[in-house]
Amino acid sequence: MAAFKILTAVLAVLCAWYFYNQETFSEEMIQGKRVLVTGSSSGIGEQMAYEFARLGAHVMLTARREERLQQVVQKCRDLGAASASYVVADMSNLTSARRVVEETKNHLEGLDFLVLNHVGGTRFGHFEGTIESVITSMTINFFSYVQLTISALKMLNESQGSIIVVSSISGRVQSPFAVPYAAAKFALEGFYTSLRSELHLRKADLPITVAVLGYIDTDSAVSSVHGKVKMAPSPKEDCAREIVKGGALRQREVFYPYWNIKLALLLRDWQEPVPAGMPVRWAPLRAAPGMRRGPPHCRFRMLSPDPPTSTSFSPLNCTSPKGPA
Amino acid sequence: MAAFKILTAVLAVLCAWYFYNQETFSEEMIQGKRVLVTGSSSGIGEQMAYEFARLGAHVMLTARREERLQQVVQKCRDLGAASASYVVADMSNLTSARRVVEETKNHLEGLDFLVLNHVGGTRFGHFEGTIESVITSMTINFFSYVQLTISALKMLNESQGSIIVVSSISGRVQSPFAVPYAAAKFALEGFYTSLRSELHLRKADLPITVAVLGYIDTDSAVSSVHGKVKMAPSPKEDCAREIVKGGALRQREVFYPYWNIKLALLLRDWQEPVPAGMPVRWAPLRAAPGMRRGPPHCRFRMLSPDPPTSTSFSPLNCTSPKGPA
Repeated sequence: MAAFKILTAVLAVLCAWYFYNQETFSEEMIQGKRVLVTGSSSGIGEQMAYEFARLGAHVMLTARREERLQQVVQKCRDLGAASASYVVADMSNLTSARRVVEETKNHLEGLDFLVLNHVGGTRFGHFEGTIESVITSMTINFFSYVQLTISALKMLNESQGSIIVVSSISGRVQSPFAVPYAAAKFALEGFYTSLRSELHLRKADLPITVAVLGYIDTDSAVSSVHGKVKMAPSPKEDCAREIVKGGALRQREVFYPYWNIKLALLLRDWQEPVPAGMPVRWAPLRAAPGMRRGPPHCRFRMLSPDPPTSTSFSPLNCTSPKGPA
Repeated sequence: MAAFKILTAVLAVLCAWYFYNQETFSEEMIQGKRVLVTGSSSGIGEQMAYEFARLGAHVMLTARREERLQQVVQKCRDLGAASASYVVADMSNLTSARRVVEETKNHLEGLDFLVLNHVGGTRFGHFEGTIESVITSMTINFFSYVQLTISALKMLNESQGSIIVVSSISGRVQSPFAVPYAAAKFALEGFYTSLRSELHLRKADLPITVAVLGYIDTDSAVSSVHGKVKMAPSPKEDCAREIVKGGALRQREVFYPYWNIKLALLLRDWQEPVPAGMPVRWAPLRAAPGMRRGPPHCRFRMLSPDPPTSTSFSPLNCTSPKGPA
């Protein structure tokens, strides 16, 4: 009984200490800030744009669909954005990615939040066994993020701004039937967590918030996994709010939904391994019979909010841009 | 006391069960098998070639330095390889990667082990802030692995062969001062663990062994981190032996040195997060003053065994190859 009392007291002190040390989110952290949100014509990107608008930020949106962007920009203005504009761009082209940052600079004269959120070039299905599918996914979901970051570094430096990277549980846990997508999301994790750690050691002030998301109720995610996932998706509005808040508070990570992600990560290295060899016959990679349900963690996967693109990789799109000095 | 006895008995039964269920490694698993080892002119690749040779395999070696390959091939013959040959190739070119598999097919008429080991295009140092450095690292350390895998799939299918992927702790834990390298190693982890899981669910018999390595005493690793790492490196000969054994036993993972890697992974999600924001002045990315020592897990990093290359990405190298049907 005495031990129980001591434990309760210790827990109470720890909780108090934790909450005392939590910085509180306030509107002033966003009001008047200049924000670029990629992939903002729909899904979580669109909701983040509304969240920034509601809090009085200057928002610059970008995606491929001009008509959708115009509608989102109008709603941002209605919600109270300090200003709202857009630039149409396709993130399978790294020159376009660089141009988006230039347009932002011309228009907003600086940048406080770079929000990297777009996804594309992938689908939920058997791995096709082509290098093109991997290069396409890597270009849209990884290289364009890096290009946007490099191009925006000088502005973020000047404003003491920060970067928000929208990632997925597929960037931390194996994801069958989403192989090229998982490779790109893992690459994002490796790049941004290493860069954050390096900048920290170099005493540089550039916070990077990585949002690790589960199954969210965006139209594209729900239609992709319709009938294949039992779990109820989490609401995109609340998800967007948590990401914006985490970014404003300069948190290292945002998990959403929190406990689903946290438990999957805490347990990933403690599980019994699946045997590498299976004493069964080989099925050719291209054969695509009925989809099979993945292992339990598949339930957390967030899938491509944008429809797949078929654009191939071009060196003109990547060798010409130069990073800031 | 009774509880202690029961616990001991349960542990003894679990240990007996574990060892009873362990398949034992034998020379016959390798003897006469056809093996392709990339990056085999030096370091761990060279040692794996010797290990396969000692066990009587047909070895096909590949790297960029012809003179070194000739020496390694000769030593493989002396050690008892069923046959030993080489093909000179640069893995920054995906067409070359495809050609290596074609040459292997012509020469060995099949393949039992595809051993992906080469590294290049990176160095231990500040992130340069250029997209080119990221594309180069990704091409050599990730895309070429995928291209080799796709090109070899048909042969591996026919022989019920397997794939060994040499990765690093930098593919699982953030690695400051090796940002493009970490991104590529993370991408490898995402790709191969997801592909393995998908093939398992599709009842396909293609085991994939991922070797997660720490600090090994290869010439390039030791010279890269000389004076920056306190820890003693582990021997490359023993490392190579463990990887070959793990591959032959079709293990899902090989950790080397085992407990260093295992503990780092078990604890990675249980640590207190580093705050994302640092209240200090920004230092430009290109400025390169004295190197600072990284966090503890840096001690486990394995760095580029090959000297950096400056080759840029070309679409001719990646869009022309076609995967097998």
